[in-house]
Amino acid sequence: MAPETRRTSKTGPEYELIYWPGIPGRGEVVRMLFEEAGVAYTDTAKGKRAVPTVLAHAAPECAGDAANPPTFAPPVLKHGDLVINQLPNILLYLAPKLGLGPASGNGVYHLNELALTILDGLLAEVHETHHPVATDQYYEEQREEAKKRAKAYREARLPKFLGYLQKVLDGERSGGSGWLYGEFTYVDLVLFQCLDGTKYAFPKTVERLKKTGKYDGVFKLYDAVRERPNIKAYLESDRRVDYADGIWRYYPELEDDE
Amino acid sequence: MAPETRRTSKTGPEYELIYWPGIPGRGEVVRMLFEEAGVAYTDTAKGKRAVPTVLAHAAPECAGDAANPPTFAPPVLKHGDLVINQLPNILLYLAPKLGLGPASGNGVYHLNELALTILDGLLAEVHETHHPVATDQYYEEQREEAKKRAKAYREARLPKFLGYLQKVLDGERSGGSGWLYGEFTYVDLVLFQCLDGTKYAFPKTVERLKKTGKYDGVFKLYDAVRERPNIKAYLESDRRVDYADGIWRYYPELEDDE
Repeated sequence: MAPETRRTSKTGPEYELIYWPGIPGRGEVVRMLFEEAGVAYTDTAKGKRAVPTVLAHAAPECAGDAANPPTFAPPVLKHGDLVINQLPNILLYLAPKLGLGPASGNGVYHLNELALTILDGLLAEVHETHHPVATDQYYEEQREEAKKRAKAYREARLPKFLGYLQKVLDGERSGGSGWLYGEFTYVDLVLFQCLDGTKYAFPKTVERLKKTGKYDGVFKLYDAVRERPNIKAYLESDRRVDYADGIWRYYPELEDDE
Repeated sequence: MAPETRRTSKTGPEYELIYWPGIPGRGEVVRMLFEEAGVAYTDTAKGKRAVPTVLAHAAPECAGDAANPPTFAPPVLKHGDLVINQLPNILLYLAPKLGLGPASGNGVYHLNELALTILDGLLAEVHETHHPVATDQYYEEQREEAKKRAKAYREARLPKFLGYLQKVLDGERSGGSGWLYGEFTYVDLVLFQCLDGTKYAFPKTVERLKKTGKYDGVFKLYDAVRERPNIKAYLESDRRVDYADGIWRYYPELEDDE
């Protein structure tokens, strides 16, 4: 088995995920879908030329081709002749192909809006807590601003997003299923991964919010996803990369005081 | 004509846009699609109960219904029984219905990724320049942090996004058409509105970048959209709201020094 490939593709073109090595990051959300579905994919982050491969897809000379516009940033997905980027867009493309969402109809848009909101609240805004001034400068250069942003995140934004997700679970559409949209779909995987990362970044804050009992449905969903056989096996495997200095980072000074 | 309604719907359910009154904001990107297509829509921002209507769609008691999850924040689109939110999601839904994008195939994902990147770079990141610490606190409370974030935006982020968009226009897929995806689509409208807002927020910066000559295709596209008959008529009408304290704000202290 080549180091970049986990399973052998059986039918159709293979999925190829292009992402930074060494951090879970945005790429990890894509991996969750492949792993749950048990579908073959090449993960360039696990290969020898991981960094040059990523850089080639965001470089000035990356011009796309006759079929594909140039990509802006990883994660990038290749599937046959198709090359796409932007995480929520990759999820939108994969979900029906992997049996994790409908191919047409209103559900496409409902799931997409839930994915976008989770990614805003538990991914993009977590990144902003440690880089509120400039993405291309070190954390240490913006630590004071980060403390302020993290405080607002812990006290206002994170409870707001968790409250919204609990409201979705309490809503008629979820219908007491325990899943965001009434049956298991890719947005449940998105919530699991983003909450898992947020727990890594803000363990005390997430524990405090969990203890309020206001978001029990959200944490129950998290536990239920973790126990799904394919996800459980993946999380215990060496394919699962530890958190590090990516989107979800742990800085004690950005955490709750108590 | 009712104050909330611009045109009379001819066939099918009417489109209803729910958004804050008094600012163009995210809702304006949705309006651009309706206006270009010449399609009837109700704009609650122009009605008497504009604020209560918006608040009702983000309130804790907004629980959705059997068909629709609760919405998180405006803009919200209602179309028949469907209720959706998240701006890129609304655009994704509307584009094929308004003849501004394909209903299926790879183009759906290419256009969606372009919309997401433009909205990241020329909408969300512009909002971050004046609210880098906390969305729910006043600008005046975070002015010093805003100056730093705005500097990084002017010097690194905005040139990066404009450079990417120029690269898309220079790419084979655009094919010298002057449009991002080889023919006029909704993403050209997204670029127009977001660049227009960014020009309002950073007039000196955008003028400086324009003069470099590095992004001529982007500014040519901007001018071409502005001259489209339906867009031109809209921009000159009293339906077009002036910029104010929304996403795109003008604070001289956040601008270029020179």
